[in-house]
Amino acid sequence: MSSVIRIDGRAYDELRPMDFQLDYQSHPLASLLVSCGNTREIVAMSVEDKVPQWMKNQKVPGGWITSEYGMLPSATGERVRREASAGKQSGRTVEIQRLIGRSLRMAADLEKLGERTVYLDCDVINADGGTRCAAISGAALALAVGCKRLFTVADNPFRELVAAVSVGIIDGVPMLDLCYDEDHRAEVDMNVIMTESGKLVEVQGTAEGAPFSRAKLNELLDLAEHGLKQIFALQRGVLENIQ
Amino acid sequence: MSSVIRIDGRAYDELRPMDFQLDYQSHPLASLLVSCGNTREIVAMSVEDKVPQWMKNQKVPGGWITSEYGMLPSATGERVRREASAGKQSGRTVEIQRLIGRSLRMAADLEKLGERTVYLDCDVINADGGTRCAAISGAALALAVGCKRLFTVADNPFRELVAAVSVGIIDGVPMLDLCYDEDHRAEVDMNVIMTESGKLVEVQGTAEGAPFSRAKLNELLDLAEHGLKQIFALQRGVLENIQ
Amino acid sequence: MSSVIRIDGRAYDELRPMDFQLDYQSHPLASLLVSCGNTREIVAMSVEDKVPQWMKNQKVPGGWITSEYGMLPSATGERVRREASAGKQSGRTVEIQRLIGRSLRMAADLEKLGERTVYLDCDVINADGGTRCAAISGAALALAVGCKRLFTVADNPFRELVAAVSVGIIDGVPMLDLCYDEDHRAEVDMNVIMTESGKLVEVQGTAEGAPFSRAKLNELLDLAEHGLKQIFALQRGVLENIQ
Amino acid sequence: MSSVIRIDGRAYDELRPMDFQLDYQSHPLASLLVSCGNTREIVAMSVEDKVPQWMKNQKVPGGWITSEYGMLPSATGERVRREASAGKQSGRTVEIQRLIGRSLRMAADLEKLGERTVYLDCDVINADGGTRCAAISGAALALAVGCKRLFTVADNPFRELVAAVSVGIIDGVPMLDLCYDEDHRAEVDMNVIMTESGKLVEVQGTAEGAPFSRAKLNELLDLAEHGLKQIFALQRGVLENIQ
Amino acid sequence: MSSVIRIDGRAYDELRPMDFQLDYQSHPLASLLVSCGNTREIVAMSVEDKVPQWMKNQKVPGGWITSEYGMLPSATGERVRREASAGKQSGRTVEIQRLIGRSLRMAADLEKLGERTVYLDCDVINADGGTRCAAISGAALALAVGCKRLFTVADNPFRELVAAVSVGIIDGVPMLDLCYDEDHRAEVDMNVIMTESGKLVEVQGTAEGAPFSRAKLNELLDLAEHGLKQIFALQRGVLENIQ
Amino acid sequence: MSSVIRIDGRAYDELRPMDFQLDYQSHPLASLLVSCGNTREIVAMSVEDKVPQWMKNQKVPGGWITSEYGMLPSATGERVRREASAGKQSGRTVEIQRLIGRSLRMAADLEKLGERTVYLDCDVINADGGTRCAAISGAALALAVGCKRLFTVADNPFRELVAAVSVGIIDGVPMLDLCYDEDHRAEVDMNVIMTESGKLVEVQGTAEGAPFSRAKLNELLDLAEHGLKQIFALQRGVLENIQ
Repeated sequence: MSSVIRIDGRAYDELRPMDFQLDYQSHPLASLLVSCGNTREIVAMSVEDKVPQWMKNQKVPGGWITSEYGMLPSATGERVRREASAGKQSGRTVEIQRLIGRSLRMAADLEKLGERTVYLDCDVINADGGTRCAAISGAALALAVGCKRLFTVADNPFRELVAAVSVGIIDGVPMLDLCYDEDHRAEVDMNVIMTESGKLVEVQGTAEGAPFSRAKLNELLDLAEHGLKQIFALQRGVLENIQ
Repeated sequence: MSSVIRIDGRAYDELRPMDFQLDYQSHPLASLLVSCGNTREIVAMSVEDKVPQWMKNQKVPGGWITSEYGMLPSATGERVRREASAGKQSGRTVEIQRLIGRSLRMAADLEKLGERTVYLDCDVINADGGTRCAAISGAALALAVGCKRLFTVADNPFRELVAAVSVGIIDGVPMLDLCYDEDHRAEVDMNVIMTESGKLVEVQGTAEGAPFSRAKLNELLDLAEHGLKQIFALQRGVLENIQ
Repeated sequence: MSSVIRIDGRAYDELRPMDFQLDYQSHPLASLLVSCGNTREIVAMSVEDKVPQWMKNQKVPGGWITSEYGMLPSATGERVRREASAGKQSGRTVEIQRLIGRSLRMAADLEKLGERTVYLDCDVINADGGTRCAAISGAALALAVGCKRLFTVADNPFRELVAAVSVGIIDGVPMLDLCYDEDHRAEVDMNVIMTESGKLVEVQGTAEGAPFSRAKLNELLDLAEHGLKQIFALQRGVLENIQ
Repeated sequence: MSSVIRIDGRAYDELRPMDFQLDYQSHPLASLLVSCGNTREIVAMSVEDKVPQWMKNQKVPGGWITSEYGMLPSATGERVRREASAGKQSGRTVEIQRLIGRSLRMAADLEKLGERTVYLDCDVINADGGTRCAAISGAALALAVGCKRLFTVADNPFRELVAAVSVGIIDGVPMLDLCYDEDHRAEVDMNVIMTESGKLVEVQGTAEGAPFSRAKLNELLDLAEHGLKQIFALQRGVLENIQ
Repeated sequence: MSSVIRIDGRAYDELRPMDFQLDYQSHPLASLLVSCGNTREIVAMSVEDKVPQWMKNQKVPGGWITSEYGMLPSATGERVRREASAGKQSGRTVEIQRLIGRSLRMAADLEKLGERTVYLDCDVINADGGTRCAAISGAALALAVGCKRLFTVADNPFRELVAAVSVGIIDGVPMLDLCYDEDHRAEVDMNVIMTESGKLVEVQGTAEGAPFSRAKLNELLDLAEHGLKQIFALQRGVLENIQ
Repeated sequence: MSSVIRIDGRAYDELRPMDFQLDYQSHPLASLLVSCGNTREIVAMSVEDKVPQWMKNQKVPGGWITSEYGMLPSATGERVRREASAGKQSGRTVEIQRLIGRSLRMAADLEKLGERTVYLDCDVINADGGTRCAAISGAALALAVGCKRLFTVADNPFRELVAAVSVGIIDGVPMLDLCYDEDHRAEVDMNVIMTESGKLVEVQGTAEGAPFSRAKLNELLDLAEHGLKQIFALQRGVLENIQ
């Protein structure tokens, strides 16, 4: 299988070069320019000292973590219509930001967060596949950094790093971290979201061309775990440099 | 494990009573009243002799299968605001109807469908958990029935039945086909969508309270396969009675 | 005139078979599956313990009764676009739900209702003409049942049953309770809403093809009264069986 | 009954002073400033040489007549929110403009109109009750004038004048042409729309406080006919002065 | 330059006939029918005893002055789509009402206004160029009149009259107060808003066909000042007749 | 006046450090990361081979240049609500993108552009005042670069560089290129847009706190010209390095 040559010369189990540039923006509590190959996103963590209306009467008081995802019209191959001017977010956007929010709520103790809402804004500046995974890995790191800056060690609601990676099957071969051209041709497309301690947070596998077997599902999960370990190492590198 | 007693007295690996009542409505090509315990939905297949605008310039000509999902305001425990009056579909609705559409497009050969759009409308009349799975199982059957009525055997674009079931982990125990009260308490919630020949179409597993291990994922998949076989038998019973 | 043979074999002054199936749904205070020939609707009554914002500063405190009307996309001959996905309710929907709300507010003492909002959701499952009238007759019964369940006899704000029926002129002949094909061809279309004690709540008569005389208006009103008496008997049958 | 003294000193069967000022605007084919007591509206007729999309495939070719109704935020006692800024028309507006359009389509032969859309814009400048009736009477006159200007006598699709008036019951007494303060207190509110030859186009009677008898309905219709004759005379006066 | 003959016979430095008819409507605190040639607008001032949500937590308490601008669909040469029915205000409308609001906030002391919101509704009844300038001159007068009526001399938050006029360059010649046909052909279009004491409130000059020099800018400003003096005289005439 | 010390140590007539980084994104024909002090924006030029619907029937065939402006929610001091999720663009956004589009249409010959639409997307990544001016200067450069890449020298519709700069009066002192804190405190705020040959394209001066004299207007224009010369030099540097 090592003889497969991918579009960009990578091995089937190789991540694209990945980088987290901290504090790219001047205003948010924590912000990152996340690069993953040609995919580039700005991820920012902002905190508001109140909770959404529907949480007001909850029995257990606590906070909320939510995400908004967007893409510059100029970020893709063909210009996409600006959602603000169209007057609504696309179904794809809605689905992605719900996934990010759900995953990130696993990374923190909402009760300990107190009556706060954390916004994780993920904006794609340049798209080349894997934008939702880059968003999740970046948002988890931004959340970790922001919490470290906002809370004392004792009060910190942050629990554990979370990261996401895409895997897929192309011409019958499982591959790690698909770029856009690969994603476009994949028979199966899967996103795996995990905690640093190796537990699954979310698994979403979709047959795009043909249904797949349990055996293939397991191969894809193995490949994802292999890639996620490297992403956790990168996140940890950034996080440990924060005073 | 056989000693676990569920809210409604079922065993951990037992489906709720399920039923497909054909031609419940008088106008669509095929319509079903789907019951799954107290969950009741109307699923209808309609065909339009044209394709969406964005398909007009596709290289390979063919049709499209899409789904719309809705819920009567009175279908749930507390009345939910009518989406038509709110002026937009909720994120949950958007996510569900994208999932149904994606799964159903695997059940047919879109090229063979010709320049047609198939609408699969899934409307929840009474909700008690598992509405998206009931919608997919019902929509696949409605599509099969409708295609049988619309096409000759030779031209029929329908490929294979598809069905969906929910599984989850409650107090550490994997369980099949969660009702609302179980779903509400589940630590892990998963929807498994499969073809009649046993291949996976979509897997969506989400940690709601705590992340889960690969071992648990496999137990859940086994349980889902067990339930799906029974649903395929029910679908086939209806389908074979159509002339 | 008795020699007129209608599409479905009825006499000019004959109602279609009508039925109210109580508690069709499991969650609302009262719900009905209303059938009127092939027209089928689910009508549900829900209560919220607050009033709309604009009522907050009223001099005379009291409650509000409102209605929302919808139709499944698959309920009609040709699939209609889902209003939730179109992002707004059609003019027809808005007009119908205003009519239902107005009529139902005559059936109860709003002051006695207290600071509550009653929602009467009317959802058409299958349409064959007369959906707004079936909705009103069903909603009045749901309101009566719900109030009987919620209030003591002394506190019950329900006043009197209300029912609606359509009448119309086809080829010069007044007819009762038009089905869709008749409604489509009618020169005059009228909805008459009455109290059980025989007073008018609303009269809406519209010339569709040619204007009509006062004499015809009176014939239509006579015909409507004849049909409404039978509907009141059906409603009363259901209502008296409630403990 | 002649001893009843109304707020503004009128007899129970007396119209408010009414006036139609032709060509108030410089651009439309026909425009009127309609006054009815303190109610003042601008009604304009515009013609577009195409029909709405849904009419494209009609069997019988022909045109369409539609109406849009609006009210300046400053036209009422308390400023109302501008619908353009709220982003949607209120239910009341939708209901009124559907009524106007329906009534005006009775005044012309749509087939003879040809592939044109007539817009009747009715904008309330100052409101004191009866705005929908003034709109209909004004729109019918604008339509008549515009058709006279656009078509030869032989091709003129205009059929007959139409006018509308409100009647109501206040403290048990039927009254003609209610001003806002009367309308506000009325137990029954009715709009009667008639052709110049005395046939009914639309009747809408609504119980606001208490249901009403057939006898009262007849008294109201008599009163309306009495007022409509005077409005037809005013319309005719304007129409006959057009070359 | 005096030999230039304009479409309507005016000299290059001549205003169109202008008029302010006070209290044209019966409900608002102050309303005006503003005429400027064939341009006619209704301008009304309404007051609400609360401030917008975003002002609630301001350090310096005070009020707010805002404006809404609209145009009847029938006010222009070709009927324009009603914004309320389109569901949103056009970019042009948004831009104009922001300009009016901004200018008018300079005419009053917001702190002295107290916790009130002043609405200045400007609705164009007939359009022939210069609608935004007529709106500003009218709104300033309505604000002055309304404040005089609402406040004692000591408490009056009104500071100074403001007026606006358009100037432009056509075929290289600067001209005052462009009508629609001139505006349409202008190479440069400028709106100048000034206080009665001769200070600039806003200057907006736009090259429509070709960029312009500093020298031309100065000529245009001279012309505008010349016209504005006449408008201030007209406003003052109305204002001084109020008791 | 040289003794005035600004927040960031600049002289009153000093621009912030400015930079244009070409081809920051991989997909658009031309894209720039524009920096102006802490203000950072991505400006991209995309071309579509068709014109807007309303241009279809123009007498003189030609193209269109339009702009869309957006801001990341995380770009400002306090997180702003995402316009795509709010469902509409703010008035400020609409006003800015109209200004950019208008200015850029002066930079090219629309007839020579042919049946094409040019989109200039300006997205603010980090905001510190002057975002609309940076957008215009960047968009003009992107347009110049894109046209140079798309057209031969003979066919190039690009005419001339355009640039914009803000000036304002703070505590009575005119200053060049305001940062956010200065802009916030300015009594007068002005944007000056010019061609490289020194003609005015647009002038927008607004009194924020107190109206201003003609003399101050002239001082501000002098200051703007001084800054614009330096921006043109920077643009030209980038443009001349393109093959």
